[in-house]
Amino acid sequence: MILQHGKVSSPTETERCIESLIAVFQKYAGKDGYNYTLSKTEFLSFMNTELAAFTKNQKDPGVLDRMMKRLDTNSDGQLDFSEFLNLIGGQAMACHDSFLKAVPSQKRI
Amino acid sequence: MILQHGKVSSPTETERCIESLIAVFQKYAGKDGYNYTLSKTEFLSFMNTELAAFTKNQKDPGVLDRMMKRLDTNSDGQLDFSEFLNLIGGQAMACHDSFLKAVPSQKRI
Repeated sequence: MILQHGKVSSPTETERCIESLIAVFQKYAGKDGYNYTLSKTEFLSFMNTELAAFTKNQKDPGVLDRMMKRLDTNSDGQLDFSEFLNLIGGQAMACHDSFLKAVPSQKRI
Repeated sequence: MILQHGKVSSPTETERCIESLIAVFQKYAGKDGYNYTLSKTEFLSFMNTELAAFTKNQKDPGVLDRMMKRLDTNSDGQLDFSEFLNLIGGQAMACHDSFLKAVPSQKRI
């Protein structure tokens, strides 16, 4: 358990998620070339496997190309972990927003 | 399964993480007041429970106060889901960086 030092205890759900995101990034980043970034091929592999439900729903065939370009903020043709986290954040925001639209409005205080 | 429409299949690890992050945010955001943001009290509850290993390791008692201020980019005294994702991203980056320091250096191509 990376986040903890000393005594070992079960990770919390949040810690488990953080570890999983690192592990999944490393899994795909390690498929070819430099192991610490996602190449375009590795990004497509990630999107077609881990986010297949999202990817399959896209009618525009250029959407993944545009996503890669938008996420690659330093334009080096690779996604580093920070850029990858923006992808996850974007997906989480879209998912969260669709949830908010689906539930009845709540009193705001 | 929020990300998928139509046929139901097991979520991937990444989809599971996204769902978990939304669920844990909603769990803590729903503890008091407005259900769609973390108040300072809810943020402290989240940090002391979900990221307890990190929080307990901090020697400076003001660190959580400063984290809340830094994360609260619109300065409304609350953390919305986007601001919460920056907290998770920061923790993930720190965790990922400590991992990179711990493994032997690798040939860069």
